[in-house]
Formats: sequence, structure tokens, C-alpha cells
Amino acid sequence: MSLLAVGSVAFDDLETPFGKRERVLGGSASYFSLSASRFHPVQVVAVVGEDFGPEQDRVFAGRPIDLAGLVRKPGKSFHWKGAYGFDLNEAQTLETHLNVFQDFHPVLPEAFRSSPYLFLGNIDPVLQLDVVRQMVQRPKWVALDTMNFWINGAREPLQEVLGEVDILLVNESEVRALTQEHNLLKAYRKIQTFGPRILVVKRGEYGVSLFAPEGIFAAPAFPLEDVFDPTGAGDTFAGGFLGYLAAAGEMDVETLKGATVTGAVMASFTVEQFGTQNLERVTDHDIKERIKAFSDMIRVDGL
Amino acid sequence: MSLLAVGSVAFDDLETPFGKRERVLGGSASYFSLSASRFHPVQVVAVVGEDFGPEQDRVFAGRPIDLAGLVRKPGKSFHWKGAYGFDLNEAQTLETHLNVFQDFHPVLPEAFRSSPYLFLGNIDPVLQLDVVRQMVQRPKWVALDTMNFWINGAREPLQEVLGEVDILLVNESEVRALTQEHNLLKAYRKIQTFGPRILVVKRGEYGVSLFAPEGIFAAPAFPLEDVFDPTGAGDTFAGGFLGYLAAAGEMDVETLKGATVTGAVMASFTVEQFGTQNLERVTDHDIKERIKAFSDMIRVDGL
Repeated sequence: MSLLAVGSVAFDDLETPFGKRERVLGGSASYFSLSASRFHPVQVVAVVGEDFGPEQDRVFAGRPIDLAGLVRKPGKSFHWKGAYGFDLNEAQTLETHLNVFQDFHPVLPEAFRSSPYLFLGNIDPVLQLDVVRQMVQRPKWVALDTMNFWINGAREPLQEVLGEVDILLVNESEVRALTQEHNLLKAYRKIQTFGPRILVVKRGEYGVSLFAPEGIFAAPAFPLEDVFDPTGAGDTFAGGFLGYLAAAGEMDVETLKGATVTGAVMASFTVEQFGTQNLERVTDHDIKERIKAFSDMIRVDGL
Repeated sequence: MSLLAVGSVAFDDLETPFGKRERVLGGSASYFSLSASRFHPVQVVAVVGEDFGPEQDRVFAGRPIDLAGLVRKPGKSFHWKGAYGFDLNEAQTLETHLNVFQDFHPVLPEAFRSSPYLFLGNIDPVLQLDVVRQMVQRPKWVALDTMNFWINGAREPLQEVLGEVDILLVNESEVRALTQEHNLLKAYRKIQTFGPRILVVKRGEYGVSLFAPEGIFAAPAFPLEDVFDPTGAGDTFAGGFLGYLAAAGEMDVETLKGATVTGAVMASFTVEQFGTQNLERVTDHDIKERIKAFSDMIRVDGL
């Protein structure tokens, strides 16, 4: 009954106004699985190079994260170098070395092919489609993340895989590029005609908007005094959101709201430190406490 | 026990991607009083020219809006011409004709000087300070709006009047300019040292963040399929927010949350049509219904 996640595992060099870090563990599948595994067992499909060693292995060890689909290839791991200004909403890519990720062709281990929940991280939509086709039966739900690079450059396969997707998680500029609609309610109506019945729009420090057939929800970002590094916030959100959904086994509006708050809380931990540092360190008790603080913050009584 | 509002009454020429309107009623005091008077009696202090006629008078008639402080002067009323692109968050000013507003020097009618609640709309801080000094006793609370023009150009009197203020309502770029802090929690700590104990940050389509000593709250904007004209959204929010607070007579965190939702709902009506059109038309029943829809939307059960 695991949640299968396909994505990238990488090394990141990060520069923000608050400091610099080199070769920290990164990639969508890293943030996603560290976040989702707090709520539900996760299976990871990704590729790493020979530079992925015991230090990185240790980050995933002791958690319900099945790395049977993490392939090691000769060469170096995906390496990304990015910088942020004081407005932490937009990353500036300084260098991208795809390395072993260049020829990544996900092959699902036999045991992963019947997982009931599938998250397609932001990779080539041709590969996302191929993963869907490797499943022996349609999962209970399929969730997908993508980016403007694919929206503009691989529209046809993206459109095809969207036809297989239940939950689309994207940021504001992506949903607008995908639908050519500025207004998010109108954009959602269009997304529904593409396939997904649920749309999650990630808005960085402005929080998250959720659109479902039975209702709409919006949650702010958890207010933090110190935001050090926004890298991975979106994938951490997706992990918390989908991990919560998988654990609940339901998709009604109340569950979706709980998932949204959970995802926002997980993302708030990630951005407080560089890389996956805080996500690794934080305890289940810390998570529970912050979910309570968040719920109290957004609750309005007596209206 | 009225809520006294000092601000502008103007004619606006508006251009958005969805249409054009000329000489519609505008100005901070117009939006504010039409919104606040749904919840609490309002007294207006502003200036208009000879072009302000029975058509404009009718908009305020039959509402608990006391216009004894609306002075008519020879000449024309304040006239603003602005345009918006598809990103409706930022107005482009095409023309500003201050006209009679140029020499506006608010003089409070005797009956207004003991009002328990005071809203200082976005005018010269020297005038805002003068209004505070005309009060025979310190109001229960004083709220203030300002803009970058005064933050950059009239810092000293602004700082002085802030020392008399309990509730500061500004947008994101204004609070950052005022405090030289990007992070809103840090900005709030600085604002508290200036005087205000409550900070409301208006974030347009991203909603509102509220900071009080006892807690933080954030509300999304009410999701709308059609946003025609954002002019007046901030003043309409302030009207709903402060009208609700004045009616409640309290300032605890629960009341502040209810006020925030109410302000957001009122602003959502304003932006659905040009100018004050929808704010005039909407019924108390419509307001109640939308407050309920909004509360349902943001409520999270079972976390």
C-alpha cells in the first residue's frame, strides 16, 4: 500500500542572502520522500552516480523509504547550483549538470508496479507517461508535478500524461502557462478538461490554493521569522500533502484540507534550514505541534 | 459611538483589460464608508468640489453615514485616472488632478471630536496628526493607512503620527519600505516599536496577514472567477475590518480574525465591478452568505 515516487536525487550548491552550502542532498525525490514518509511508506525510483555514498544513504535509513528503485550508475549524480535574492520566491539557476540523470529511464521494480498511489515528480513527461504504463493496474490516484520547461517544450506528451492524472501540483506561473488563463478559477476549469480533477497551486510565501470539484481551500504559508533556503519547499509540500492523502485513503474535501495544512507545515520546516537538514532533524512531535499551531492560526470561531 | 473616517472623495477614470469607466465615484473615504457602514455608523471628513452633485449624494443616502464633515469647495473634486494590466495587483497612475484636495485641511465638526474610533485614510501624515490633535479625548483606537509617497517623502510626521496609532493597515511593499525588513514577522516587531500594536498587511489577490500581540492570522482573498477592477479594494477591506471591530467593541484575537474575514469579503464585492457599483448594490443577505461561504472555505476540521 505504498506511495510510489519517481523523481530526481541530486547534489545542490545553494546560495541565499543568509549563507552558502555546497553539495547538499537535493532533488525532488529526496525532499518528497523525507516529507511523505512521516505519514506513509514511500517507494523511490530515481538515479544517482558513484558519488552518492553512505553519508547520503544514512539520510534515508531508518525511515519507511524503500530505495529498491534507486539505481546507481557510473558517473556523477545530478548537480544543481542555484542562488536566491532577498525575495526568496524565485531561484536563479547558475549551473545544471544532469550527469547520470541525462539518460535516466525509470524502470519500476516488480514490487512497485502495483502501488496504489503514484507521484510523478518533475521530469520529462515522456518518462512520466512511461512510468504510468509500467503500472500493472491503474493506481487509486496519480499526482504530477511539472514545470515551464516541459509546458513550453514538451506539450504533447505532457498533455497525454495529464490525461492519466488525478492531482496536479504546480506553481502559479505554471498553471497560467498551461492554461493560458490568468484567473485561477478559470484555469482550474480548463485543467479539469485535461484530466486532473484536483489542482493544487503552490504560491511560495503566499501559501497554497486547492481546487476540487466539491470545494476550494486556501492556506497561507506558516509565518516564519527566518527563512534560509526555499529549495525543496514545493517537493516537501507535495510529500506532506500526498503522504497525508495516502495515509487517509480518502479524497473528500476535509481530507484534502488536512493534507494541505500538513504539506504547508512540512514545507515550513524545510525552508528554515539549508537543504534537507531540518526535514531530517525535525521530530514527529515538532510536526504535530506545528500542525496544531497552524490550525489554531487559521481557525475562525464565532462568525 | 461612531467610526470617524478622514480621507478622500474623488472621481476616477478607470481602465482595466475588461473595460473602461469615466468619472466613477472613488476615493478612500467613499469605499471605506460604504463598506464600514454595513456594520457600524460612520462619520466622514473629506472635501469635494462643485462637481459633486445629487447623483453622488444619493450613493451615501439612506445609510448610517454622517456627511456633516464633507466640505464643498469652489472648484473641481479630486480626479484620478489609472490603468491596470492583466496582473491586477499594481495600478498605473495616468493622471492625478488634486483640485480642491490640494488645500484640504480637515476640520472636524464638534460632534465628531469625541468619536471612539478613528480611521485616518491615506493622506498627508501632517494632516493625519492634526486630526488626532482635534480629538477631545484619545479614541479607543486609531487606525491608519499610508503609502510609499509619504513613507519616502514625509517620514518624520509619519513617524510622529504612528506613535498615536493602534492599527496600521498597509500593503506589503509599504510595510517593507517603512521597516526596511523583508520578513513580515520582523517587520511587525519593528512596527510595534513605532506605536501600532496591530499590523494588517494587505496582499491583493493573496489575501491579508494580520499580526497582533496575541497571535497571527492569515486569510486568502475570496476566490472569484471575474475580477474587473481592483480600485478601492484596500479601502473597502479597511471599512469591513474596522466597521466590524467598532461594532464588536473588542480587539481580542477572535474579533480580529472575524474582522479580517469580513474585510476580505467586502473587498471581494468591490473588485467584481467597476468603482463602488457592487458595494452599493450588494444586500446584507449577500454579505452574510459570502461570509458563510468564506468561513466554510477556510475551516479545517479533524486535524
